Amino acid sequence: MPVKNLDSLDKIVSLSKARGFIFQSSDIYGGLAAVYDYGPLGVELKRNIQENWWKSMTQFHDNIVGVDAAIFMHPKVWEASGHVEGFNDPMIDDKQSKKRYRADMLIEQHIQKLRDKDKDDEADKLQEQLDTTGTRKGLCEDLYDIIMQEEIKAPDSGAFDWTEVRQFNLMFKTHYGATSSGDDDAIYLRPETAQGIFVNYKNVLDTARVQIPFGIAQVGKAFRNEVVARQFVFRMREFEQMEMQYFVEPGTDEESYENWLNARMEWHKSLGIREENLRTAPHPEDKLAHYARAAADIQFKFPIGWQEVEGIHNRTDFDLSRHQEYSGKKMEYYDQKQQKRYTPYVIETSIGLDRCTLMVLCDAYREEEVDGDTRTVLKLHPKLAPTKVGIFPLIKKPELQEVARKIEHELREDYNVLYDESGSIGKRYRRQDEAGTPFCVTVDFDGLEDNTVTIRYRDNMEQERVSIDKLGDVIRDGMRNWKSE
Amino acid sequence: MPVKNLDSLDKIVSLSKARGFIFQSSDIYGGLAAVYDYGPLGVELKRNIQENWWKSMTQFHDNIVGVDAAIFMHPKVWEASGHVEGFNDPMIDDKQSKKRYRADMLIEQHIQKLRDKDKDDEADKLQEQLDTTGTRKGLCEDLYDIIMQEEIKAPDSGAFDWTEVRQFNLMFKTHYGATSSGDDDAIYLRPETAQGIFVNYKNVLDTARVQIPFGIAQVGKAFRNEVVARQFVFRMREFEQMEMQYFVEPGTDEESYENWLNARMEWHKSLGIREENLRTAPHPEDKLAHYARAAADIQFKFPIGWQEVEGIHNRTDFDLSRHQEYSGKKMEYYDQKQQKRYTPYVIETSIGLDRCTLMVLCDAYREEEVDGDTRTVLKLHPKLAPTKVGIFPLIKKPELQEVARKIEHELREDYNVLYDESGSIGKRYRRQDEAGTPFCVTVDFDGLEDNTVTIRYRDNMEQERVSIDKLGDVIRDGMRNWKSE
Repeated sequence: MPVKNLDSLDKIVSLSKARGFIFQSSDIYGGLAAVYDYGPLGVELKRNIQENWWKSMTQFHDNIVGVDAAIFMHPKVWEASGHVEGFNDPMIDDKQSKKRYRADMLIEQHIQKLRDKDKDDEADKLQEQLDTTGTRKGLCEDLYDIIMQEEIKAPDSGAFDWTEVRQFNLMFKTHYGATSSGDDDAIYLRPETAQGIFVNYKNVLDTARVQIPFGIAQVGKAFRNEVVARQFVFRMREFEQMEMQYFVEPGTDEESYENWLNARMEWHKSLGIREENLRTAPHPEDKLAHYARAAADIQFKFPIGWQEVEGIHNRTDFDLSRHQEYSGKKMEYYDQKQQKRYTPYVIETSIGLDRCTLMVLCDAYREEEVDGDTRTVLKLHPKLAPTKVGIFPLIKKPELQEVARKIEHELREDYNVLYDESGSIGKRYRRQDEAGTPFCVTVDFDGLEDNTVTIRYRDNMEQERVSIDKLGDVIRDGMRNWKSE
Repeated sequence: MPVKNLDSLDKIVSLSKARGFIFQSSDIYGGLAAVYDYGPLGVELKRNIQENWWKSMTQFHDNIVGVDAAIFMHPKVWEASGHVEGFNDPMIDDKQSKKRYRADMLIEQHIQKLRDKDKDDEADKLQEQLDTTGTRKGLCEDLYDIIMQEEIKAPDSGAFDWTEVRQFNLMFKTHYGATSSGDDDAIYLRPETAQGIFVNYKNVLDTARVQIPFGIAQVGKAFRNEVVARQFVFRMREFEQMEMQYFVEPGTDEESYENWLNARMEWHKSLGIREENLRTAPHPEDKLAHYARAAADIQFKFPIGWQEVEGIHNRTDFDLSRHQEYSGKKMEYYDQKQQKRYTPYVIETSIGLDRCTLMVLCDAYREEEVDGDTRTVLKLHPKLAPTKVGIFPLIKKPELQEVARKIEHELREDYNVLYDESGSIGKRYRRQDEAGTPFCVTVDFDGLEDNTVTIRYRDNMEQERVSIDKLGDVIRDGMRNWKSE
């Protein structure tokens, strides 16, 4: 059977909309850029991934506990973390259209245009110039100079009438509380969940009876005013992170970092993601973030190329030391066994839940030639599938409906199931293929005689006749023994 | 055994902080008013409640599906919903301190002061005046007049130097996207999750093969810039809602409303909340919100009095009609069986997850006199308890530790468990009582001989010796057969 993997993100976008995985946000009002809503299938898929991650962290580790910090945090947090000063993109405004652009992206697009015109030499030279623009300090001036030198025009208005390049903070700001004066009650929507863990480090230490090494896990929304947000749910302005900060003794950090990098890769495989679509990509030393001693991505081969799904970082004692400095509270740990005091190092595992959901969809997508027709199927790991079992009476006859409903009610105790009686059986199977439902059960007249039903498997489309009494066991075994192909 | 129920919210606040249920947000920076973070125990309790609600809605109803809409929505949504125009509190600013106050609350406080000075007649008269202030239109002027007439001073500065009373919108506003012009890219943080369901009504109808009556369930954060936010997690500026909108044929709405009111009350009881602490409170007809034809609270008897935990509302076709008007998209439903077209009515069930968590904590709290000492215990429903089993070696001896660890690893497959070996057994039991852990298992030397352990029950402190092989069954039965007392 000829099988085709996913070759374009557009197919996932279409399927997501058609089957109810992911919709454009505020769809009836024309949408809101770079924000998406999860539909009935998408929310179940996302919840299953999230629940799996949460349990893998907290229930299955005796030294990892959870927290759930609020999105609103004290503004000082973002001074301590460095976000107020350093979480910027270099932006330039077109005075004609009032539109704002990321200066480096304008230059990148210009380089691409040169290449399209076969002016590769010019493009190479400019790319080199762009790559060697100043550090944060001289960056704006350098980018402005290139835009002037190349006479790059505004993409929307065509004008060449620019403001200066300025640093533009990516945090969303809002006003809080009840004073009439303006800026002293400004707060930010958190741009990352990690800081919610760091500011609760002492609370956890004081209440949860943990000893180093220990971890704190959290799932939650974060917000970034990305100017170039795009590629479906891959880069959004509102997104969900699953982060775990692991507090270790300095000197053991490198080993812990390696262990977590391996453990996290194993987790991705445990979701059924095919190994050939996963790789680790360490960050070169000269590209490390200011807080990191070592960092690596876990990348997935999306149709748009290899892209980060998760980051593992050795953040050293950067965050705890900064919070100690800004809050005046001691962030040290007293190691009773060794009778010594130190500020722990932190190994961070940080994964985007939306991006992970997109990865799972992309990896599961197949088009298969079946009887001259194309079958689209999501070969999701059964534990992640939004619906586990579709239950169908062969036709709309009361005696079949009654048995099907009875099976539905019994299986519903343990699984998300779906009862469907409309359309031909073939069409109903195909709908569940596109929804990623691993098992379908059909009740027919033969079965009324001998108390059997047909179970049909999504992956290989094989059908099997089983006794209704054994159905629960067959499904449980099918869930357990599933392997990605 | 003398038993005392909760008599003050402060006790829950203290216990929450001490055991790690709920912390003040950004604690190390002095906190952020009316925002809280969930600690290791709190996050598990909240997740268990949420998961229970979610399954009760989606998995256990064949006609209710979920969605997860973003917090950011198109600004038109809040025009259609009426929030831009009508979601206001009347505020007044003290020109001296720049502090802002809710005008009606200032007057309420003034009335209370009169009562404290035994000037009840004056107080009664003023209360009557306050109760008969204008409708939305004349409200600000009426409140201003009372403040002038009574010469009410600013509580913080003591000044009598007020601005006018103005309507102040409770939605948090932020700026979005990439234009240099200001106000056309203003968006709001959603003040309720319901609208995320209404704007996805058509998407769900088109993809999920649902027929009326059907429901859409959602869990998510909402934000309100409450000026008088207080009473711990009862009224917060950032909070989590669990809402279900049930779409019905007009004419069947009253029956559906009654059914859901009953069903939701049953759900609260299913969490183990004692019946005497629950009641329904219908809203009198003249106090109904503009969109509602009928509404009732499910209230819980908090230490601060009977308060709403959940609201059930007959919202009629108000929301869908408004979105039809503002978006220009048809929100009608075509009923194939009856061959007729109509705009569905909506029955809403809306519950605050934080408030529900607080209710569960308050209801479970007991102080018991035990041997002249006070035992504090949370008699949580086992299915909601953050930790299901505490596992203790009697003392720190390798042979006991080894068996205890083995039991821990086995039970961890199914439950959140905790291994603890520090302190006396009595202290370990009491710690788990305060955490609401329903079962503790102690490994002692006798048990090494005959392969048994002691299981100790939280609620009645009874102890039982059971074979290790039977431990899983005993715990499973204990979970299943639990009853609130």
